Amino acid sequence: MNNQLQENTLKTVRVGVLGVSGYVGREAFALLLGHANVRLTYAAANNTTGPVSQIFPEFLNRTSLVCQKFDVKEAITKCDVIFLGLPHTESMSVVPPLLKAGLKVIDLSADYRFKNTRVYEKWYGHRHADKKNLSKAVYGLPELFREKIKKADFIANPGCYPTASILGLAPLIATRKDIGAVVIDAKSGVSGAGRKAVVGLHFCEVNENFKAYKVLCHQHAPEIEQYLSRLAGRSTPVHFVAHLLPLTRGILNTMYVPLAEGITLNQLHTLYKKFYKMEPFVRLHPLGGQPEIKNVANTNFCDIGLALSADKKMAVITSAIDNLVKGAAGQAVQNMNIMCGFNEVEGLI
Amino acid sequence: MNNQLQENTLKTVRVGVLGVSGYVGREAFALLLGHANVRLTYAAANNTTGPVSQIFPEFLNRTSLVCQKFDVKEAITKCDVIFLGLPHTESMSVVPPLLKAGLKVIDLSADYRFKNTRVYEKWYGHRHADKKNLSKAVYGLPELFREKIKKADFIANPGCYPTASILGLAPLIATRKDIGAVVIDAKSGVSGAGRKAVVGLHFCEVNENFKAYKVLCHQHAPEIEQYLSRLAGRSTPVHFVAHLLPLTRGILNTMYVPLAEGITLNQLHTLYKKFYKMEPFVRLHPLGGQPEIKNVANTNFCDIGLALSADKKMAVITSAIDNLVKGAAGQAVQNMNIMCGFNEVEGLI
Amino acid sequence: MNNQLQENTLKTVRVGVLGVSGYVGREAFALLLGHANVRLTYAAANNTTGPVSQIFPEFLNRTSLVCQKFDVKEAITKCDVIFLGLPHTESMSVVPPLLKAGLKVIDLSADYRFKNTRVYEKWYGHRHADKKNLSKAVYGLPELFREKIKKADFIANPGCYPTASILGLAPLIATRKDIGAVVIDAKSGVSGAGRKAVVGLHFCEVNENFKAYKVLCHQHAPEIEQYLSRLAGRSTPVHFVAHLLPLTRGILNTMYVPLAEGITLNQLHTLYKKFYKMEPFVRLHPLGGQPEIKNVANTNFCDIGLALSADKKMAVITSAIDNLVKGAAGQAVQNMNIMCGFNEVEGLI
Amino acid sequence: MNNQLQENTLKTVRVGVLGVSGYVGREAFALLLGHANVRLTYAAANNTTGPVSQIFPEFLNRTSLVCQKFDVKEAITKCDVIFLGLPHTESMSVVPPLLKAGLKVIDLSADYRFKNTRVYEKWYGHRHADKKNLSKAVYGLPELFREKIKKADFIANPGCYPTASILGLAPLIATRKDIGAVVIDAKSGVSGAGRKAVVGLHFCEVNENFKAYKVLCHQHAPEIEQYLSRLAGRSTPVHFVAHLLPLTRGILNTMYVPLAEGITLNQLHTLYKKFYKMEPFVRLHPLGGQPEIKNVANTNFCDIGLALSADKKMAVITSAIDNLVKGAAGQAVQNMNIMCGFNEVEGLI
Repeated sequence: MNNQLQENTLKTVRVGVLGVSGYVGREAFALLLGHANVRLTYAAANNTTGPVSQIFPEFLNRTSLVCQKFDVKEAITKCDVIFLGLPHTESMSVVPPLLKAGLKVIDLSADYRFKNTRVYEKWYGHRHADKKNLSKAVYGLPELFREKIKKADFIANPGCYPTASILGLAPLIATRKDIGAVVIDAKSGVSGAGRKAVVGLHFCEVNENFKAYKVLCHQHAPEIEQYLSRLAGRSTPVHFVAHLLPLTRGILNTMYVPLAEGITLNQLHTLYKKFYKMEPFVRLHPLGGQPEIKNVANTNFCDIGLALSADKKMAVITSAIDNLVKGAAGQAVQNMNIMCGFNEVEGLI
Repeated sequence: MNNQLQENTLKTVRVGVLGVSGYVGREAFALLLGHANVRLTYAAANNTTGPVSQIFPEFLNRTSLVCQKFDVKEAITKCDVIFLGLPHTESMSVVPPLLKAGLKVIDLSADYRFKNTRVYEKWYGHRHADKKNLSKAVYGLPELFREKIKKADFIANPGCYPTASILGLAPLIATRKDIGAVVIDAKSGVSGAGRKAVVGLHFCEVNENFKAYKVLCHQHAPEIEQYLSRLAGRSTPVHFVAHLLPLTRGILNTMYVPLAEGITLNQLHTLYKKFYKMEPFVRLHPLGGQPEIKNVANTNFCDIGLALSADKKMAVITSAIDNLVKGAAGQAVQNMNIMCGFNEVEGLI
Repeated sequence: MNNQLQENTLKTVRVGVLGVSGYVGREAFALLLGHANVRLTYAAANNTTGPVSQIFPEFLNRTSLVCQKFDVKEAITKCDVIFLGLPHTESMSVVPPLLKAGLKVIDLSADYRFKNTRVYEKWYGHRHADKKNLSKAVYGLPELFREKIKKADFIANPGCYPTASILGLAPLIATRKDIGAVVIDAKSGVSGAGRKAVVGLHFCEVNENFKAYKVLCHQHAPEIEQYLSRLAGRSTPVHFVAHLLPLTRGILNTMYVPLAEGITLNQLHTLYKKFYKMEPFVRLHPLGGQPEIKNVANTNFCDIGLALSADKKMAVITSAIDNLVKGAAGQAVQNMNIMCGFNEVEGLI
Repeated sequence: MNNQLQENTLKTVRVGVLGVSGYVGREAFALLLGHANVRLTYAAANNTTGPVSQIFPEFLNRTSLVCQKFDVKEAITKCDVIFLGLPHTESMSVVPPLLKAGLKVIDLSADYRFKNTRVYEKWYGHRHADKKNLSKAVYGLPELFREKIKKADFIANPGCYPTASILGLAPLIATRKDIGAVVIDAKSGVSGAGRKAVVGLHFCEVNENFKAYKVLCHQHAPEIEQYLSRLAGRSTPVHFVAHLLPLTRGILNTMYVPLAEGITLNQLHTLYKKFYKMEPFVRLHPLGGQPEIKNVANTNFCDIGLALSADKKMAVITSAIDNLVKGAAGQAVQNMNIMCGFNEVEGLI
């Protein structure tokens, strides 16, 4: 990225990353380091301190920023925009003072994704402590809510599975009334589980292995249902099963959509093509093509593939994203770009 | 393998493996090498010759057998039982003389799995050249056809995906009349694709990658449908999507079975427990447990897990096998054990 | 495992595994489960209890043994032989009562590998609490100490790197006086680090990664030096660098041995062939062949390859083992077989 | 990369990639696509044609360039600079007309790396057909030959192992006269072997495996020796052993350098720090730190770590690069930047 010759008038914002020692925080940090409109001015975490280049030696010679123990006052002084890469239930206590001080906040946790706090409380096992700011939070899925994001100061950044699921299903859900019980068979790489020291994420437990987990009881299912239902204008339940892939990054969803009245493959393809025609980060495969995780890894793209049963009544939609990029930090940067009036793809292509 | 007090009169057979240089042939060879009732007397392939311990140095100091260019007369002279690990369409020309000479034959290709040759010809793109022996072939899935296998001389060994699919679905398919459109979301390790020199199986194309392939048009779908339909007593179509996992061995299927009249989780669990209660190689997980590929890798087990939607109308069945063992060579050995009157688990546990 | 015509009088021993919830303990348990002369009667761990088939569902339907909180009295009552798969420094407190009660003990930790407790204390950072039994411990490397093992009641089972290193170097070290500074460039799979919940062993930290660690300061270096020095009859220091491979099991060492007086490749090969000619678990590759981890994974073999520089003065010896089998539990079973008068390869081939 | 606001005067060159269907060509294509001073105007290969976004769907929506069957006239018309990602021995027939037409040429094969064609012919098994242009070729290792590269029109881009080896050894080799027999224990990811359809690179042959190959007879050894000897001012042979890592990209070398007169660790560190102090792409780890492949993957960095034996007479130097970036396409872009007067890091950080 050669920013040398850019004009003096290039608008820049001062950005901080909270939770930089986790995989999502690290990814945000890496993307922001290469962003022409960003000066990284603050990095913090709850349990890790020291030079970012020591926590992640990949940043050796690339940044002198030191990860601090989080201090809300320091964050307010040093940042215009802040990315929160905190565990679920921790964002709630941090968001109110940051918003009050006028910062733009992008929360990558689940804390502000549910309009109904009872749903949140059921699935995340924690009372919601900041209902006040809930109404201010805009769900940061630009393909559906770009106009709202433009005017927002506060983004609830979508979960990784919901991003892949909603983008893959939206064109059908938004336009068809004859949809039966949707099945989402979702597979994710290991970074989606976070950078936790637990035996279940030990290399030898995951390597050469594959399993379903939280079968029909994953906390991302209600998030998906909430936004699909809004899109459909009626309750849209899904059967969601998550699986753990033995790879670092990437999600691939295979989604089965029964259509009572049938559709042709060309109609299906045209529907998707139109729906996403202006989108810089959604790539519809030509008929016959199928998304692969390696084609979206380390990118902000969501790739989509289409297939149809012989009787034309079962559409199979596949969608692939990088869970850390379009499924988290990349989408957060995309949201920042929209909020701040930057080029939407800056720092991402 | 604790064979404790085996009789002096231990019966042995002379066994040959054809296609030993492929992954299925190699696996059969390895299992037979440790089998108490087997003397490996013949190994052959079409394009590779030389000591087996040179083709696969893991057999160094373990066998002095030399892989020959296949010769049907030599096979007949040297073997009582022969395993055919050949590419599809090649078994057909080899089977007739072997059967005629009185050998017991276990064919691991798809050539004799379809009763209807038109289905075979449609999916494998080749005219069937040995319809005569088709009626003699018994489909070698012991859990469903053990009595027929006992009397058989010729086994059509099931495909890997069909083994995992049929074992996972059989209890429901055999007993319920209210089943809707079944979805089989299948994921396989790379050895399932064979030991071919093609760019698509290059390490860098598969590693850190995941994709669906042959979406709704995989040749194992009609094999699954044939045997499920026989079991159900009526046509039982499935929506089958295969995926390629970045690991060497193992299949995990996630299967979605809509039940119009609903079921409780306990009923579902009891149904499976009864169905498989005498089976040495099917392991039903306790409620809440889920199969994982690493628990069946290098074994002949098929592990099964059960889950149910809140409305009790969508059962999610997961099944896991090692595609090279229960999905191919191990099941072939199990079939040989049954045919020859050996202990069914000999060489396999 | 072809045990053919075993006698009616088959001798069996009752065996216990302490530390069964770790990778080494699990491996010992798996091997012993298939051992013709063994009845597994006791499994224990310090922090994990419950059915072994629940801790490791791969044992579902294969064992009903329940992992207990370790109790020395119970172990003494239930076992003739006990395998200790404990963290270093913990074996010392368990060994004395077990030996006193007359059990045969195989300790897989480092606690009794050093004749000089100062070396142990320097490298393991812990005072040695049982010097008394140190002299009873026989270093369990059968290829060098088989006769002593036959008469022993107590085995200090070698470390994984030392097994691969000493077996690879022994023929040269034992016979040549012109050896210069030996370099051991060692690479190990992740299971060698144990089943610990630490971020450094998280899948995403190890996958697609490779690094050297404990460069020139690994605790296995003094173990290697002690036994090479004994073999050489003089101090034999080595330059040892460990590396972490992104795979589950296996070690491959590349060892550089300068020979002041030179040697021919044929002489080198003959030297190794003679040295290991009667060994069931050491496989010397033909000239030109090289060991690979996949050929020894899940086996008790140590494979060795040889190469020589053009000037004949630098021998490059490569050795490969499975760190959990020949590098730990398999070698322990081999030692038990020798101590108990069983067939040395029982349960291992 | 936001190039929008860049000045009208931004110098651009038209660039072509020959051999775009291989891993090195693909990597060059990807890097050039994000380069502010480059217009990609031509892509070609010998055996693959069609849209680049079809050959590699990761480029979907990112390029409309179509890969052509190579035509030298078209290349000359369309390009100012050309990258040759061809198999060894094929560049020789392509280079003469391109140079003659005045293009700047960066050859990523080995064809022009050896000043002595006898050495080339011995190791690559092919007569050298273009000795005339050999003297024009500058070895494209900027850290050693930047001034020559500035004036060059023709670059022989270094091999991957030589880049990691020479950068890791240069400071010692250039300054010390007391160096003994150097050992280079080199480990590379699979992409280094190219995108070939051969069984040895099949996923199942490489996954969960590790081996040494071409032990003491790898064709990169003479390349390393040639440039180390030039640096030392005397013949500098090395003992080089290559190994294949089960990962896609990255090289880590562990190098053992005997120093007759000894050195302190601080002296060693200072020596390296000074040698590379102005280099944008060489990162010396602080004492105690060690390079890891994951920290350089997908970057143009070469990371270096240092250790020393207790007697101060054996230095252990570790170096890590991405074999496709600093070991091939990234270094080629760096060379182009230097040749064309662009910012040296453009397109690379």
